[in-house]
Amino acid sequence: MIASTYAKMLQEKSVIRELFGYALDRAKEIGYENVFDYSLGNPSVEPPREFTESLIRLLQEESPMKLHGYSPTLGIPSVRKKVSQSLQERFKLPYLAEHIFMTTGAAGAIAHAIRAVVTPGEEVIVFAPYFPEYKPYITLSGAIMKIVPPELETFQIQFDQFEEMITDKTAAVLINTPNNPTGVVYSDRTLKKLAKILENKSEQYGHCIYLISDEPYREIIFEGKIAPCVSSYYKDTIMCYSFSKSLSLPGERIGYIAVNPFCKEAEAIIAMCGQISRGIGHNCPPSLIQLAVAENLHLTSDLSVYETNKSILYKELRKLGFSCVEPGGTFYIFPKALEEDAQVFSQKAKKYDLCLVPGDSFGCPGYFRMAYCIDTEKVIASLEALNRFVKEEYGLRK
Amino acid sequence: MIASTYAKMLQEKSVIRELFGYALDRAKEIGYENVFDYSLGNPSVEPPREFTESLIRLLQEESPMKLHGYSPTLGIPSVRKKVSQSLQERFKLPYLAEHIFMTTGAAGAIAHAIRAVVTPGEEVIVFAPYFPEYKPYITLSGAIMKIVPPELETFQIQFDQFEEMITDKTAAVLINTPNNPTGVVYSDRTLKKLAKILENKSEQYGHCIYLISDEPYREIIFEGKIAPCVSSYYKDTIMCYSFSKSLSLPGERIGYIAVNPFCKEAEAIIAMCGQISRGIGHNCPPSLIQLAVAENLHLTSDLSVYETNKSILYKELRKLGFSCVEPGGTFYIFPKALEEDAQVFSQKAKKYDLCLVPGDSFGCPGYFRMAYCIDTEKVIASLEALNRFVKEEYGLRK
Repeated sequence: MIASTYAKMLQEKSVIRELFGYALDRAKEIGYENVFDYSLGNPSVEPPREFTESLIRLLQEESPMKLHGYSPTLGIPSVRKKVSQSLQERFKLPYLAEHIFMTTGAAGAIAHAIRAVVTPGEEVIVFAPYFPEYKPYITLSGAIMKIVPPELETFQIQFDQFEEMITDKTAAVLINTPNNPTGVVYSDRTLKKLAKILENKSEQYGHCIYLISDEPYREIIFEGKIAPCVSSYYKDTIMCYSFSKSLSLPGERIGYIAVNPFCKEAEAIIAMCGQISRGIGHNCPPSLIQLAVAENLHLTSDLSVYETNKSILYKELRKLGFSCVEPGGTFYIFPKALEEDAQVFSQKAKKYDLCLVPGDSFGCPGYFRMAYCIDTEKVIASLEALNRFVKEEYGLRK
Repeated sequence: MIASTYAKMLQEKSVIRELFGYALDRAKEIGYENVFDYSLGNPSVEPPREFTESLIRLLQEESPMKLHGYSPTLGIPSVRKKVSQSLQERFKLPYLAEHIFMTTGAAGAIAHAIRAVVTPGEEVIVFAPYFPEYKPYITLSGAIMKIVPPELETFQIQFDQFEEMITDKTAAVLINTPNNPTGVVYSDRTLKKLAKILENKSEQYGHCIYLISDEPYREIIFEGKIAPCVSSYYKDTIMCYSFSKSLSLPGERIGYIAVNPFCKEAEAIIAMCGQISRGIGHNCPPSLIQLAVAENLHLTSDLSVYETNKSILYKELRKLGFSCVEPGGTFYIFPKALEEDAQVFSQKAKKYDLCLVPGDSFGCPGYFRMAYCIDTEKVIASLEALNRFVKEEYGLRK
């Protein structure tokens, strides 16, 4: 009588986790420095020193009862206020504490947002390639996930197919820009068109279609690129943020939901998030971490290494003949594999100690993801293996 | 189109939270020291100094990448191992790391346990009076909550009614000992009988009925009392633990599930918890807190104040004529109100600045809960108000 839904999930192994496991095993054999592990999207730079100092100061100076006491379910009031003020300054939207719900990272944020605006049986539209965890977030809330096929030239949006896919049952659209796995940033043009379609369709069907915007990579933007603020384009936007990547804190599970202040249901959605928490046993994100993060909202880790790595890899991949859209941010790149089946391609790459994740689980077969949140030294060291791999398995491409 | 289930929940206000809010407002008027707030079950003693020292040491000495990096979904391996070893030593059951799943407190533990062993539409049996949050944990997982009426003489179990309530659809039974709100500890006799019935019924229906044991108050046991280890009585027990009360860390959201090593499905249940996490955006409990707690598994806060408070209150309540079962642990007591409607009783108590929670939301009308996790000084100061309340509203009882 153990619940069959979850038991069945155990059969479906995560390709990313499996590759990561392989990398660890291989590291034991040949040394970690010789495994070129591009599998996991785990930040590779330290959190800002100021963050650690905040934690130590809080622990030394504040009352432990206050520090470790229950936070209200919606988040510590002073923290919600500081988050809203920082968003207000940055994005020029009138965010107040009432529009903020503190979450356990972007995962917690998305899981809450979906439950808040989607009734079981309704549909959530995502765009391929998409972060594989969107599937459990959506389907385990009882909703149906519909996937718009990828626009392979630029990894922006296939609008024709998107429009056709919207029905009366569409409750929300989930986007991720800057994007995992492509590294692509949605353009001003893309977001304008997306907003226009959502406005029209909301009117046509007589109910609001929410835009859930997953933004953990917002701060990792490369030179000359701009990451437009999604909420500025569409009033019914639920921003889902995480400090995991910007402050290199993935294990501390801290992020927030910010509902656009112009959304009619903004405060109701935040209040409902508190109720949703009751069902999933969330209660609040860790209070010590809430307080420390609120002191460092203006900071990020030194994110420049990701751009350095991107430049090296993008140049080399192009030189080797890969078809590849240049990332505008994040620490991912998503080139086309050199043969139709990216899983076979990825399997062959292992011989060269290259861990490349096939695009199938992102809803985009034939491509592969490299997470270049690793030391630049290692990126450089991996180029020789990459060259050998391409040459020996596929012949010289150019 | 905002999800109606949660929108509806917003209508149902939490009586406890409302009373707590009242206490805060009243404190602004007459000073905090003059409000006798027995509403919230929030620890009133500091965490052990060693816990704070562990945190500071980790922050000063360990690599921040390791400290704040992703923990595996099931928990940091070294932490799971230490937890299993401490359980093994203490309860003489062969727990291994494989039987442990780190959670965001007992709330997260129970929410996971229910989803792991109960399929939507199946039934979970609880015993009145019960912690009100059991209702959202159970119903929002899609299960049905069935309530065994209270055994008012001792607050042990009404076994006849319990047995009658078990059907083919019963997937789990959820108990809480030491108990919130009664403070009562289930006796050896109660647990033996409970186990026997569950074994018989599991055999009768041809499927295992799981025992979910909510144990956040396990460490708060009064002199001369013993809290028997629930898992020792029944092999299909899922222990749900929280450090919130024992280490005074409710805001840090840290606890665990420990499945009885003799449970046939133990490892499958733990693995499934990881899958359940994917759907609710849990990922892992805060990694820094996991590591700090693992260094202090043998410690508790100084919990003796709760026993001091209990003794003062119990004596006074009896003196005033209240019918009341003496608590064996926790920081709660659950006397019978002096009139049939405990909500009216509680309303009248407010006039004397006494915040007493009516038992209705615990599934036990006519009784009220006092959470005496407050300073002993304040307990003593409240006695005068309690005396006046009883005298003026109900006349001298004895």
